[in-house]
Amino acid sequence: MAGLSEKKRIISLITDFGQKDPFVGIMKGVMLNINPDLVFVDISHEIAPHDTLEAALTLKLAYGYFPKETIHVVIVDPGVGGERLPLAASKAEYFFVGPDNGVLSLALEDANGEKKVIELSERTYFNREISSTFHGRDLFAPVAAWLSKGVTLTQLGPAVSDYQKITLPRALLSSDRVFQGEIIYYDHFGNLMTNICRSDIEQWGKELGQRIDLAELRVRIGPYDVSGVKKSYDQGSSQRLSALFNSFDYLEIFLFQESAQRFTQFGPKEKVFVSC
Amino acid sequence: MAGLSEKKRIISLITDFGQKDPFVGIMKGVMLNINPDLVFVDISHEIAPHDTLEAALTLKLAYGYFPKETIHVVIVDPGVGGERLPLAASKAEYFFVGPDNGVLSLALEDANGEKKVIELSERTYFNREISSTFHGRDLFAPVAAWLSKGVTLTQLGPAVSDYQKITLPRALLSSDRVFQGEIIYYDHFGNLMTNICRSDIEQWGKELGQRIDLAELRVRIGPYDVSGVKKSYDQGSSQRLSALFNSFDYLEIFLFQESAQRFTQFGPKEKVFVSC
Amino acid sequence: MAGLSEKKRIISLITDFGQKDPFVGIMKGVMLNINPDLVFVDISHEIAPHDTLEAALTLKLAYGYFPKETIHVVIVDPGVGGERLPLAASKAEYFFVGPDNGVLSLALEDANGEKKVIELSERTYFNREISSTFHGRDLFAPVAAWLSKGVTLTQLGPAVSDYQKITLPRALLSSDRVFQGEIIYYDHFGNLMTNICRSDIEQWGKELGQRIDLAELRVRIGPYDVSGVKKSYDQGSSQRLSALFNSFDYLEIFLFQESAQRFTQFGPKEKVFVSC
Repeated sequence: MAGLSEKKRIISLITDFGQKDPFVGIMKGVMLNINPDLVFVDISHEIAPHDTLEAALTLKLAYGYFPKETIHVVIVDPGVGGERLPLAASKAEYFFVGPDNGVLSLALEDANGEKKVIELSERTYFNREISSTFHGRDLFAPVAAWLSKGVTLTQLGPAVSDYQKITLPRALLSSDRVFQGEIIYYDHFGNLMTNICRSDIEQWGKELGQRIDLAELRVRIGPYDVSGVKKSYDQGSSQRLSALFNSFDYLEIFLFQESAQRFTQFGPKEKVFVSC
Repeated sequence: MAGLSEKKRIISLITDFGQKDPFVGIMKGVMLNINPDLVFVDISHEIAPHDTLEAALTLKLAYGYFPKETIHVVIVDPGVGGERLPLAASKAEYFFVGPDNGVLSLALEDANGEKKVIELSERTYFNREISSTFHGRDLFAPVAAWLSKGVTLTQLGPAVSDYQKITLPRALLSSDRVFQGEIIYYDHFGNLMTNICRSDIEQWGKELGQRIDLAELRVRIGPYDVSGVKKSYDQGSSQRLSALFNSFDYLEIFLFQESAQRFTQFGPKEKVFVSC
Repeated sequence: MAGLSEKKRIISLITDFGQKDPFVGIMKGVMLNINPDLVFVDISHEIAPHDTLEAALTLKLAYGYFPKETIHVVIVDPGVGGERLPLAASKAEYFFVGPDNGVLSLALEDANGEKKVIELSERTYFNREISSTFHGRDLFAPVAAWLSKGVTLTQLGPAVSDYQKITLPRALLSSDRVFQGEIIYYDHFGNLMTNICRSDIEQWGKELGQRIDLAELRVRIGPYDVSGVKKSYDQGSSQRLSALFNSFDYLEIFLFQESAQRFTQFGPKEKVFVSC
């Protein structure tokens, strides 16, 4: 990819900085100094502190909905100032900037197309002074802004052959008739998202040599038994757990207009069993 | 109204999505794909989950401060994927997009001018695939972006003759000398906003045939007695409740530099009595 | 300074409005009515309610990272509608807008260059109606937008000779070998920021006639003893407090990947002693 066209200048941000401190605003100030025509989209600044898996998952869910050539910046960086490398990458016509601790990896593994990953080493594109505690401001923000101005990955540093990968826990068959997964995220509404995809279930049906009827599936989580997969939230109840495939095609356990997370007190790593 | 002029491209957003999940960012990504020149203004993403009244009130208070032709998008949508219709509307030179569950209705009832409300039915202006759980992303966001590009309401779907309405509780005379209302909202500072408007009191004075002296009014809430209406917060005390007409001309009960909500533990539906 | 060039149009915002109420969105709507080409950067809306010191510190840390001619708007304004003056100022090629209660003062004192401070008195540049409870909307927002359009400070009102100043508590030598400061802020990660600057320590070394070895410093806070100053967070431990100079060059006490604030329960005003 030969740098960005003039008009494209969207930078998305995912951090664990919260919204009280001036850190995000400062990063935007730094970037606007380099390119005053940037458009910022805040995807989340409420990633749990230091939670690289949550950041990686958020990026994976979101990046593909943005216009091509969007520059996705992810700063969840507990190892800042240490030995982890700073990276930039491109894939599927998107750009990615962040530390080499796995935060970019779910998106990079996910997308089709040629992937290029480089180590940020060319200090011309950093701030003049670089702290050892805020590379978001001193290194990643300026690099993202320079990318938006047409600087290429090749100009920013050498290709790396490997990088840190985070993997989501895998859903798998625990027996012929039982598919086992786990909760990987819960959202603001308390919906419990599992790692079981619609395509997992379809594949399972193929292996069983039968079409699996979603309305007949049984979903078990802790002491709770959920029968059938609904189409929309309003088909569920506010008193009894239901399941559906959410808008990202992951199996999700919910209460209608209530929080399944608060009701069950379950969170990530809780096992989920689907039987047909 | 014949579509928007090229230069106007403001989209305001009111949702109950919170700020941790990538939902809002994803909606913006979808819209930028259709119109990269959009300007987004987040009015609130902290509407209480599923609280259509709070969303409707927030829109009513805010919409008129925006430039004409702003497109106000409201996604508080517990019935997503069910039978409620998706709507778009125009009134007073503003555009409105959201589900037919009342969230748009306080603004639509409020504004002067001709009102047009349509059902979103023309799938050309939706995402190609439409989930049954995230119409914000798949339907309302693209429609809002197309509106910003000059697509007309008529192109988006047929007019509807009626739509769901939410009404604020009405303040009323409980006797000649007592006006009765209730708390309808409290803000970040803990100020308790009632449904009693300055114009209600003026009208009351007319009916009584006397000019009501605001400084002489008595306001009663629960066990608390408030005498007189102040002009500004610093005329109140941090230890004793006071009242004033807030910047939207609603009667408000407050503590100076403290939270009246925390102090009283009162919230929406608590009765308020004003006597003269 | 003779007004802004056409292309510069960045407005930063610091308030204690929180993110649920429509107040910030309304201010942006008001400004876009005056100048539709504005770019907003939210620095923080989570300043503790009425905390003018926190607002002043946030502005001081952030303002200089923005492009020259940025207009920084700070609305933490418990005295709204009372006697405090509304101000605008320029210094170091930045503009500042806010109430005369000290919120602008740390930045104005900090910057080099000629300083100009005026009282906002020219009502042409305010909203037509001015509430006594929301000057952010009715007065400061429109003034900031008019500044972005090239209106000069001189047009906005007369110069003032003095204005309210907030001062940070000063760090000082409590003996030849002990430097005494205090916590002034803690961030989202629970890092405890003190008022002791790197330059304070360097100056101290000069007075002692010796180069102070940071790795040999002892830092004491409450019952905790911290030895040595680290370079980056990952040199610390998650179980034992460490110290470093943060990215703003203030001494900071931290736990690696944990919250020192939650661990110690310390906050602003807690004394910190550094000995060499």
